[in-house]
Amino acid sequence: MKVLPLITLVGVSLAAAAPALAQQGTKADPAVLAKIKDEGLNRSKVMETAFYLTDVCGPRLAGSEGLSRAHAWTKKQLTDWGLTNAEVEPWGTFGRGWDIEKSYVAMTAPYYHTLIGAPKAWTPGTNGALKKQVVVVKARNVAGLDEYKGRLKDKIVLLEVANPPQPNFEPDARRHTDEALQKMADYKPEGPLTATPQQQQATKQRQELSAMRARMADMFVSEGAAAILSSRGGSDGTFFTSNGAPYAADAKPVLPELEMAPEDQLRLIRLADAGIPVEIELETRTKFQTQDLKGYNVVAEIPGTDKKLKSEVVMLGGHLDSWHAATGATDNAAGCAIMMEAVRILKASGVQPRRTIRIALWGEEEQGLFGSRNYVKNHFADPATMKLLPAHEKLAAYFNLDNGAGKIRGVYAQGNEGVVPIFQDWLKPFADMGATTVTLRNTGGTDHLSFDAVGLPGFQFIQDPLDYGTRTHHTNMDTYERLPADDLKQASVLVASFVYQAAMRDQKLPRKPLPAAKPENKS
Amino acid sequence: MKVLPLITLVGVSLAAAAPALAQQGTKADPAVLAKIKDEGLNRSKVMETAFYLTDVCGPRLAGSEGLSRAHAWTKKQLTDWGLTNAEVEPWGTFGRGWDIEKSYVAMTAPYYHTLIGAPKAWTPGTNGALKKQVVVVKARNVAGLDEYKGRLKDKIVLLEVANPPQPNFEPDARRHTDEALQKMADYKPEGPLTATPQQQQATKQRQELSAMRARMADMFVSEGAAAILSSRGGSDGTFFTSNGAPYAADAKPVLPELEMAPEDQLRLIRLADAGIPVEIELETRTKFQTQDLKGYNVVAEIPGTDKKLKSEVVMLGGHLDSWHAATGATDNAAGCAIMMEAVRILKASGVQPRRTIRIALWGEEEQGLFGSRNYVKNHFADPATMKLLPAHEKLAAYFNLDNGAGKIRGVYAQGNEGVVPIFQDWLKPFADMGATTVTLRNTGGTDHLSFDAVGLPGFQFIQDPLDYGTRTHHTNMDTYERLPADDLKQASVLVASFVYQAAMRDQKLPRKPLPAAKPENKS
Repeated sequence: MKVLPLITLVGVSLAAAAPALAQQGTKADPAVLAKIKDEGLNRSKVMETAFYLTDVCGPRLAGSEGLSRAHAWTKKQLTDWGLTNAEVEPWGTFGRGWDIEKSYVAMTAPYYHTLIGAPKAWTPGTNGALKKQVVVVKARNVAGLDEYKGRLKDKIVLLEVANPPQPNFEPDARRHTDEALQKMADYKPEGPLTATPQQQQATKQRQELSAMRARMADMFVSEGAAAILSSRGGSDGTFFTSNGAPYAADAKPVLPELEMAPEDQLRLIRLADAGIPVEIELETRTKFQTQDLKGYNVVAEIPGTDKKLKSEVVMLGGHLDSWHAATGATDNAAGCAIMMEAVRILKASGVQPRRTIRIALWGEEEQGLFGSRNYVKNHFADPATMKLLPAHEKLAAYFNLDNGAGKIRGVYAQGNEGVVPIFQDWLKPFADMGATTVTLRNTGGTDHLSFDAVGLPGFQFIQDPLDYGTRTHHTNMDTYERLPADDLKQASVLVASFVYQAAMRDQKLPRKPLPAAKPENKS
Repeated sequence: MKVLPLITLVGVSLAAAAPALAQQGTKADPAVLAKIKDEGLNRSKVMETAFYLTDVCGPRLAGSEGLSRAHAWTKKQLTDWGLTNAEVEPWGTFGRGWDIEKSYVAMTAPYYHTLIGAPKAWTPGTNGALKKQVVVVKARNVAGLDEYKGRLKDKIVLLEVANPPQPNFEPDARRHTDEALQKMADYKPEGPLTATPQQQQATKQRQELSAMRARMADMFVSEGAAAILSSRGGSDGTFFTSNGAPYAADAKPVLPELEMAPEDQLRLIRLADAGIPVEIELETRTKFQTQDLKGYNVVAEIPGTDKKLKSEVVMLGGHLDSWHAATGATDNAAGCAIMMEAVRILKASGVQPRRTIRIALWGEEEQGLFGSRNYVKNHFADPATMKLLPAHEKLAAYFNLDNGAGKIRGVYAQGNEGVVPIFQDWLKPFADMGATTVTLRNTGGTDHLSFDAVGLPGFQFIQDPLDYGTRTHHTNMDTYERLPADDLKQASVLVASFVYQAAMRDQKLPRKPLPAAKPENKS
């Protein structure tokens, strides 16, 4: 899941719902639905798939060797399960590949201590081992940088930590309460929202900080600093990674930079602030790949069997890429493993879908939903022009999963009132598994938005948050341990069931009105 | 705080308490008590002291350079504050000094990933960089080791992880509830307790595991393994360190061993278990020091001013040594910083104590309370013989702090019914600061036990647990961030007040009956 700078806003008016119609016009077979549950709960392979995606493929940064391994493995695995037309499909130009070949950082004065950190994505290595003194840079604005001129040559720059860790009285992980789910279910759109003054202020501060960081980066290069140690937060040995990475083939040079565990970074800063000389030993080696700048999605199909409907497609997907400091277990091996398990379950259950079912494992989501946006642009429509390609009318639905490893509690209708009674009906067999809620609310941050942006019915499920927001999302601790098997099994069965229902229904899912072209919308 | 294998047991019968007597016979001055609060809350230096103990001195493993730095710094600091007779006093023979000079570990196949870990205390380094394949050893008993014979030569042995991390629905940190404190206050000893069958079983399992680990260690050496990666648990980048270290000057050789973050260790194990070759790159360098095998305590005094009472002593202390993977902030820089702050407050408040006040910062607590046990043996009595030295009758009280960084909620009377009303009286001015509870309960695990073992009135305070048990105790995350300033200030003021009261009282604190000699009790 990518962090988007602004909340997505709902501006759709409500008309009367039509629950009585929901169950009509489907050839979904209750016996098949029972088979799906049985296969997914009693012969699950979702944890095995998750193990391959995380531990075996490794971190799957956009353009990395790990993502290439995942392309090859998922294509083969989907084919082995009997899917057809499995392809690693290029979507266009992304940028440079990048991998870490060595990462070592320690404090060597005033005494020795290894430090926890990793190279920031797409930064260069140190070209051998360095031993350097540090300078803490605390400039609050661009003018504040002046005092560091002439002081950074050959030094390691330490940047401040915004939120120092402290003893934590809140649990990392939680599940949605009944009250929270009811609130979602009761949600009514209230017309176009505008950002609150606080949100506007926060956006402004982010923009200023971003501009400031760009100026700092230039200055550190021009002043001849040796490297940068920064920290985006975290605690307990967990650190967050950041975006804003120079992956473009023509990106301007930056310094070696490591993202550090805040406890380690703060110790260095406290010592330096107290006037105690701090020496850092640093050796990183990173590798850029520029021969293939393309980005890719992996797609595969279960062909439809209904003469009239098999040209229509039900899609499901999640993004295959991750950040680099861990194996991207909850973001988003979980989503991919569940979607892969859903199609495996459908094949193993002998489903004969009327429509074609197509799974897509997106690339380059973390840098801006690039894989799905460009897939939509290449196959369905460009939101900048809203000229519709022929396949636009053939897409019955798109289902996405990318909110961590928590089980499914319901689905976001994304302001599409027509789907509410249909989803409510489809959820009925899952009430005993905790999934009951359909909300008209939008949710943002991930690949269903690419479909929604061109008027296609794209949906993200409501998932239990677990420790996604607090511990794993974009951290070095997004590992296999964070995947509760029961949650992944439940989600796999539910997704398989939704996809089956969407494939068997007489009609495609209802759509919202087509949006206007947005010429500024870059994909 | 050391983890002791068995709970301590209470066997003291209760007589009638005497609260009316508590306030009698003291020359404690309410104006001085007010000064103590004012100095400690408004001009505190406790966080500065904690910074020096943690960040500046560094990890303070028994015998390490960090502990030597702490000896020198605390002696000087106590002297600078006006204390007298500051000494770094040897207590006897401990064993070898040991420091880490380099620590780097990464997985280099099936792909590159840096790993979080640190050399186990008192293990040798790798003698340069190694790149080796791994073998996972899963023997459940000694016989199970046979299948690994001939398979370990030149390999890195991976040992299993007992408790894999998972999403955590409980908060790391908590404070004592009113109910929990009331339960402690209501506690009545019920005569000698015996260990429950569960406790006996747990002890047996620990002994078996310990024997098994010793056999394994020998076998890994004799089979020619290159190194060991083990994990004692933890989560989120936090890992625990273990005891059982070969610090004795004549300890038999062991292999290089690293204690690893469980997430990293588990990934290596899962990959190896799946038949995927795992290669580890490992370079550690450790340094043994055998010229000075002695252990030390730091002591300093505020001399008494009452002609009759100044030969009597009120002691306060905590252990200065720590484990090596972090800076021992909560275990036990916090306790030392608070005790140091308490005597600083007393000096700054111009206190003229009737009795002499002596602070002791113990060494080698983590290996078995060695510093305090031997201090007691050298100065007061040997529990093996119970022959009392002259100073035995002169000790008015000993107060210890070593349960993390949480504020003081009361005090353990350690089965000494006579002190209950006295402590209840002394706590009165601290009701608004959350400290109200006197419990007859014993508490174990730290240096007041050394005094208690020879019939001296030694006490440990009740502290809010915060995240001591879950996150910091013996981990790589026992860092300065874990020290809440308000908690440390409150504790400093309370300890200063208790010590002042004990120094001004006409009588020494009541004692329990002298224990019988315990010839088997090794100190």
